[in-house]
Amino acid sequence: MVLRLTTADTGFDDDFKALLAGKREVSEDVDHIVRDILESVRQNGDKAVLDYTRKFDRLDAGTMAELTVSEAEIDAAMAEVPAETLNALQLAYERIYAHHARQMPEDDRYTDAIGVELGSLWTAVEAVGVYVPGGLASYPSSVLMNVVPAKVAGVDRIVMVVPSPDGILNPMVLAAAKVAGVSEIYRIGGAQAVAALAYGTETISPVAKIVGPGNAFVAAAKRRVFGTVGIDMIAGPSEVLIVADGGNNADWLAADLLAQAEHDTAAQSLLITDSADLADEVEKAVEAQLKTLPREDVARASWQDFGAIILVPDLDAAMPLANRIAPEHLELAVSDPEALLKKVRNAGAVFLGHYTPEAIGDYVGGSNHVLPTARSARFSSGLSVLEFVKRTSILKCNPDNLRALGPAAIALGESEGLSAHARSVSIRLNL
Amino acid sequence: MVLRLTTADTGFDDDFKALLAGKREVSEDVDHIVRDILESVRQNGDKAVLDYTRKFDRLDAGTMAELTVSEAEIDAAMAEVPAETLNALQLAYERIYAHHARQMPEDDRYTDAIGVELGSLWTAVEAVGVYVPGGLASYPSSVLMNVVPAKVAGVDRIVMVVPSPDGILNPMVLAAAKVAGVSEIYRIGGAQAVAALAYGTETISPVAKIVGPGNAFVAAAKRRVFGTVGIDMIAGPSEVLIVADGGNNADWLAADLLAQAEHDTAAQSLLITDSADLADEVEKAVEAQLKTLPREDVARASWQDFGAIILVPDLDAAMPLANRIAPEHLELAVSDPEALLKKVRNAGAVFLGHYTPEAIGDYVGGSNHVLPTARSARFSSGLSVLEFVKRTSILKCNPDNLRALGPAAIALGESEGLSAHARSVSIRLNL
Repeated sequence: MVLRLTTADTGFDDDFKALLAGKREVSEDVDHIVRDILESVRQNGDKAVLDYTRKFDRLDAGTMAELTVSEAEIDAAMAEVPAETLNALQLAYERIYAHHARQMPEDDRYTDAIGVELGSLWTAVEAVGVYVPGGLASYPSSVLMNVVPAKVAGVDRIVMVVPSPDGILNPMVLAAAKVAGVSEIYRIGGAQAVAALAYGTETISPVAKIVGPGNAFVAAAKRRVFGTVGIDMIAGPSEVLIVADGGNNADWLAADLLAQAEHDTAAQSLLITDSADLADEVEKAVEAQLKTLPREDVARASWQDFGAIILVPDLDAAMPLANRIAPEHLELAVSDPEALLKKVRNAGAVFLGHYTPEAIGDYVGGSNHVLPTARSARFSSGLSVLEFVKRTSILKCNPDNLRALGPAAIALGESEGLSAHARSVSIRLNL
Repeated sequence: MVLRLTTADTGFDDDFKALLAGKREVSEDVDHIVRDILESVRQNGDKAVLDYTRKFDRLDAGTMAELTVSEAEIDAAMAEVPAETLNALQLAYERIYAHHARQMPEDDRYTDAIGVELGSLWTAVEAVGVYVPGGLASYPSSVLMNVVPAKVAGVDRIVMVVPSPDGILNPMVLAAAKVAGVSEIYRIGGAQAVAALAYGTETISPVAKIVGPGNAFVAAAKRRVFGTVGIDMIAGPSEVLIVADGGNNADWLAADLLAQAEHDTAAQSLLITDSADLADEVEKAVEAQLKTLPREDVARASWQDFGAIILVPDLDAAMPLANRIAPEHLELAVSDPEALLKKVRNAGAVFLGHYTPEAIGDYVGGSNHVLPTARSARFSSGLSVLEFVKRTSILKCNPDNLRALGPAAIALGESEGLSAHARSVSIRLNL
């Protein structure tokens, strides 16, 4: 039995608040270990990276050259990947590129009514590091999602790090890096890779920003190097909320709920519906489909521990709840999704109608699958070109408009006790 | 004598690197204190806020109502501010509003060649907290700079917190809040105010994002609540870099350098010039002007400890150095600033020509004065409307284009070992 809430029940508000407040992630306290690793790499560069890679990845490299992925290795990986998968990667790349190209902000340079020239100029971050996890969560689709927006932005140098524990490296990850146009690849991971990107070593030049998901060590390292470099958000476990009317195929919705649940035992799949019959059918269909799922254990744990079905009197009542949940993924599986879309205030991505399973967005829809988790869609957005550019303000006065604006600047400067501010204006006006 | 470097000197590279790496800020380790304050406010709400306010601000309020700034108090503050200053605040508000209105991103909804509907929809953050420091650094201009972009974005609720140690509150800060349109004001500060905004109390509803500068306690609290709410960047001490040719009035540049230096002993004022004569004159002018500055001690300490003049053979040689410095403020005090502007890659804001002292941008230029410090212009931007909106991705397939895209999504899902992902697509295609 999965948790079932009904808005009509007394106590619903408290139950819903408890659902919102539920922590799905136990964060390991690795901060003290990470601090030492960062400091060691900052002091000892390549040597420290080699030592940690030997220790954590059981990879005995004598030089960083051995940890640098060569063109030949990439070509060999490409040859290993089935043609169908390569074609799918290529299609995904093209669709992601086309969508993200529309996100590139435009420079704005203008002159106002009194002749002051103002503007906002956008420039690309010069160098970006992309962290790619090793092992099970080594997803080629995530390589595309993190690298393509940087390419679109015009980032000069994109450095990928990916650990290869015991020497094992997913060839599809290298293929995706090749398709996306990564500049350099190192088979290193963990906090030591984050440190190498942030501080630089003899072999690896430092980057200005680091993106990409990772384990607790990587997350803690990113938090610590923030300021020295920029970082993207720290991603939590994935989640989906499906808002569904009675006119749904329960099997389809069950498949969507399980697509989320199979990610992680801490993933969360929620269904809000105005149909008690559909709720029952979906719950049954989930049970049935679980039995034939390779990752049954993971998906079952997620569904039982964090899944929930919420019954509402009508779909309008669903949307305030959806906005409070602020889900990473929101499926509007209803006959008129556009009507509900107008009421969406907080969501990372919305999938409209019955023919847009969230998995399309994970791979080939074109939009980014790096999205705000854990209710952070209330204040943040998915990964986009904007994360790889920055804006410089422009201001240009002439003697006339400086004379027009000067007195106000002088008044405010003096009122704040900043006389040198005031003087820097008055001295130009012979005041 | 201020530090002088010359690119032609052997050892310049090392000296310049040392200048870049110099830490200007000693960060107090207050994290354990802040952790306890946050936890206490989370548990005990208003009562904890009242207790900490009694302890840290020596303000003995029995209820939160006493810490809530009333309309009458705001009106009284408005009456206290000289008309000239109020008019200056109003002018600043209008110019900041007009500039930021151009930053509002537009929704993008479109249909691609195979009929997939995609889009990016922007919505405002629902509630924002603005931290305003008490005491000396309680600047009305900063109230405008933090609040106006939120207003432009369409934030529903803007909550200002400002400590009033011993009951003292700068009336200009309240006046600026009134001009800018703040919704609620509480006279609380420190980590307890950040906690109240992030977690909410019986009196204060929680916000989704917190912006604004503060002391070490505020900065540590913002870092800790990040994730529960969004935060803006953690600002460091301010800095200016002036790139100047020989055709400058040395007194004007000296005034600009000191306008930065008077902020903080940890502020940094740098001059790069191709004229050794100008360098000498500016250094002399700084000495002369320091003597008549109310904040002489602060400015002198900043200039002596962190100021520097760098001599380059020509102005083209200045720009690579400027981009490595990635200054918060960059003045291009040269005869052809547009030529140099084209070479700017990393800077928070650029002030062009001889008649645009940086202080104009602090107050009435229209652009934002909350800008990236400590070289973070390499990867981040000044405060803008974008910090108060978030983007939701839209995806909508129909049976035909789901059939076109489906096989690629299924191939990638299976290749990543995510069978339920693949199934959520195939089940809709009867595959």
